[in-house]
Formats: sequence, C-alpha cells, structure tokens
Amino acid sequence: MGVLAVIGCHVMREGSLAVDISRFRNGESEQVSDCVAVEEPLEIRLGFSTPDGRGLRSLAVTMRTPGHDDELAVGFLLSESVISSGTDIAAIEACGRPDPDSGARNVIRVELAAHVELDLERLQRHFYTSSSCGVCGKTSIESLRAQNCGELPSGEPVVSRQVLEALPEMLERHQATFASTGGLHAAAAFTPNGELICVREDVGRHNAVDKLVGRLLLDDRLPAHDLGLLVSGRASFELVQKAVVAGMPLLAAVSAPSSLAVNLARDFGMTLVGFLRGPRFNIYTSPGRITV
Amino acid sequence: MGVLAVIGCHVMREGSLAVDISRFRNGESEQVSDCVAVEEPLEIRLGFSTPDGRGLRSLAVTMRTPGHDDELAVGFLLSESVISSGTDIAAIEACGRPDPDSGARNVIRVELAAHVELDLERLQRHFYTSSSCGVCGKTSIESLRAQNCGELPSGEPVVSRQVLEALPEMLERHQATFASTGGLHAAAAFTPNGELICVREDVGRHNAVDKLVGRLLLDDRLPAHDLGLLVSGRASFELVQKAVVAGMPLLAAVSAPSSLAVNLARDFGMTLVGFLRGPRFNIYTSPGRITV
Repeated sequence: MGVLAVIGCHVMREGSLAVDISRFRNGESEQVSDCVAVEEPLEIRLGFSTPDGRGLRSLAVTMRTPGHDDELAVGFLLSESVISSGTDIAAIEACGRPDPDSGARNVIRVELAAHVELDLERLQRHFYTSSSCGVCGKTSIESLRAQNCGELPSGEPVVSRQVLEALPEMLERHQATFASTGGLHAAAAFTPNGELICVREDVGRHNAVDKLVGRLLLDDRLPAHDLGLLVSGRASFELVQKAVVAGMPLLAAVSAPSSLAVNLARDFGMTLVGFLRGPRFNIYTSPGRITV
Repeated sequence: MGVLAVIGCHVMREGSLAVDISRFRNGESEQVSDCVAVEEPLEIRLGFSTPDGRGLRSLAVTMRTPGHDDELAVGFLLSESVISSGTDIAAIEACGRPDPDSGARNVIRVELAAHVELDLERLQRHFYTSSSCGVCGKTSIESLRAQNCGELPSGEPVVSRQVLEALPEMLERHQATFASTGGLHAAAAFTPNGELICVREDVGRHNAVDKLVGRLLLDDRLPAHDLGLLVSGRASFELVQKAVVAGMPLLAAVSAPSSLAVNLARDFGMTLVGFLRGPRFNIYTSPGRITV
C-alpha cells in the first residue's frame, strides 16, 4: 500500500476505499491498511413531459460503486424499456451533495426528450424489488436505529481463531451435498463451538440469508446474540443489515466486504470478518470477539 | 451424472436442474448432461387486517432457488421490519400453479396476525428496487418479446475457441488495474477478434452490465449484434435479459449460469457460455457461434 495507506478512510483508487484491518496469516496478526470496494446508493430520477409541463419522479435506488453513473442510469433505463436509444435522452445531470467519504454524488437525474411517452403505471407494476433493498446508505443506517433493532451484545459470542478457520471447509462440505452446481450462495448460523446449526442455499445471497434468519425466527431463536453468520460470498450492505436485524453480532464472509458493509458493521459494533480462507482472514471491525 | 443424466431438463437434486451442454477441455468437446442452479421468481403476498376486514397485497418478487420459501418470506418480512417475531404471523401458505420444470409454487402468502399494524405507505417508499428486476420468469420472457427487442442475428458474431479462452485473463489484467479490492464484478464487451472495447466494474454485477450497455447506447453502438458480453461472475436471468435488450448474441460468464438464464438464452437463440476458465468452458445454448 505504501504511502497511500496512512491516509486512512479515504478514496485510494477509483472504486476503492482504504480501511484499517487486522490481517491474520497462520495465527500471526498485523494491523494494516487495506482496500475495500466502494458501495454507495445511487438514486435514479426521471424528468419527463406531462400535459401540464414537466414531471419529476424518483425511479429506483441501486447500491453501486460510484463512477460512470450516467452510463448506469442510461443502461438501467434501457433495460427497463423506458428508453430505446440515445435520442430519447435530453440531459443527464449528477445532483445531490457529495458523499463525505467518497466525494460521489448519489443522485442522478435523466431528462427524457419531449417525444418519449412514459407509462408510469407500467413502471410502478414493473419495479418489484428483486432483493430486500439497501435504500440510501446513511438514511438507512439511521432508519435501522429508528426501528429499535436493539443493541448487539458487546461481549458475545466469543469465537476462537481455530473455530473461525474451520468454518469455510465445513460450509463447503455441506454445499457439496446440496445442489452441487457451483451456482449457489450459502448462509449458515454457527455457534462459538463451531457447529453449523442451520445452512441455507440460494442463487441470491440475500435470499440465502433471509431463509436462514426466517428459520431462526420460526424457531423462536431471535435475537440470535449467541450465533455468528457465515456467508459463502461477499459481504454487502444488505447482508450486514440482515445480521443486525437478526441480532447476530458476528458476520464472517469467505469473500470481500464492501465499504458500506464495513461502515454499517462499525456503527453497530458488529465483528466483520472477510476473505475467510482457512488460516488466512481479515478482521475489519470489532476484533474483540475473536480470541487468538 | 450416471442414470439421472438421461432424464434431460428435470429436477435432479433439490435446487438443481439437468441441462444438456457441450463441455470443452483443451480443445476437445463432449456432449454431457450437467446441473444448473434453479432460479425462479417468488412473489411474496401479504394478508393483513384493515378497518373493513382483510386486505391482500403483493409485496415483492425475488428471483430465488425454490425450497424453504416460507423461511424466505418470513426472513424478508423481518428484514423489512414488517414483522418482529413469530407471533406476528397467523399463517403461511404456498399458492400459485406448480412450475412445469421444477414443480415449485412461485407465490407465497403470509397472513399477518390481527395485532400487526402495517404502514403501507412506508412499505411503498421503502421498496425501491435494488436492481433491475427479473420480475416473473415466464411473464417477463413474454414481456421481453412484447417489447420488440428484435431478434438476435443467428449468424454472428462468430468467435473462435482461442479468442474465447483468452478472455478471462484479459479481464483479470484489466481488473488488476482498477480498484484491486477483490470485491468488484466486471462486465466487458468484446469483438470477434478478442478485443475488449469497454470494461466496467461495480459491486453489483447488474450495475456493471448496465454501465457497459449504457456506454454502448451513449456511443450509438446499439443493437450490438457484432459484440459479445463477458462477465466475471455468474450468469443470472437478469444478465441474459440485459444482453437481449442490448442485442448482444453471446454471453460468456466466468462462473455458473442459473436455470432461468439458460432458458431465456435458449428462447432468444443466444449463445451462453459458462465456467469460462481458459481452456475449460461449457456451452449451454446455441453453440454455433463458437468455432472449434
């Protein structure tokens, strides 16, 4: 990382943010600065012609990595058949205040050309959510607090390094007995002793976590203050949010966390482990729950 | 695969479906039956008390792997703060007709207990889409046809095996120069000569594709009948849908495709390549565009 590492939580390269982490390798740990992918909400607004003049409508919020936001908005509108060519666009403008960390503007407005006919009712019908949504990062962190999720207990669960290191292989063994397509995400609840008490799989990682948390709720096991959550892929904002709602104080991901996942975990005092691959893993927040 | 392989496109194991593919290994190909993860839409409906009796509302559609749908619905409702414990649920019922392929019922109704207060307006505000949504599988395939996406040209692009095999390494080299966090998905447009003419990255793979397609639209390059789409991760329904809308006849994914991705690609005569890892890859549909 060199010189850039000392600047802490600022943009290092386009699309990434530096964070201070504890890096473990074969039982040895060191404090280093590492990069995580920036994840922030982008709200896409649509300006369009109405019989009375111009209308403005918030269309969608997507959790994205800032950069090329104009392309993202345009590609999204094409995918949803709102536009069909570049001539349907009169103007594109980034708006909203710059984010203090990344400097990105998280609202973009696309003005449609006067000839574009917009079927607002069809859009309404069409825009089902395809996942439990992150909505706006900061706003949503506040709304989580407002929802009285309750605090995560600071002292539990306590998990040893050895237990943590054994988890991915246990999950892999379980996955091998399921669909064996290589196309499914897995989520598991584990005890401080390293027992996987429930594993769920799905093409959508948010669905795998919803299934797991739903099972715990149906079993009257929430809030699950004594359990950790293990996921086979990346840790995004929405997975941390789901763990918070379930009262699970420890989230371990086999792959990378996003910037917003790290921020949300820090806010709630959650232990966030990433890149968990046997004897190699990173702790991004609240390392106290892992004993070495 | 053994005996089960001969049954063709039916459920083999829970969560997976058998499909006939061309498997390439170091230039040699064979026709085999393989498993893909089942991806199908689940519509979550909510029954609730109103001053006049009972209300019913369609809340969300998520693309999921069938199984444990009751848990999925309950976990989703908890995440969205519609419910907070098992006592908030009066009944859960699977409904809708069984899917002809998987046998799954793709609608689930959760009846809330009488004491649950539902803020429909908050829900409306809260359910932004976090991605361009798949909506209902079959319905959406039909709606794509209805949108006059146009046909994909059957004869192009023609891509040699050698060009295909070189793509993942080129994409990796490009990704190494971007954020280098291990947390970003990439999407690229490539020519039959194997040139990557545009690469975009994002924490959300659908966003990476939207950015790429948006760029092509802004450059007046659509429909991109002469280009292939390369993605760093899995191929889901929504990525195939975006490729169709952009007129791109070839989708190559470094990782696994889902069942609905295979079905949609077949429907549109798109060439779908999965598990593209140098000299090893699978062709799921329309192999004619790849020369050996």
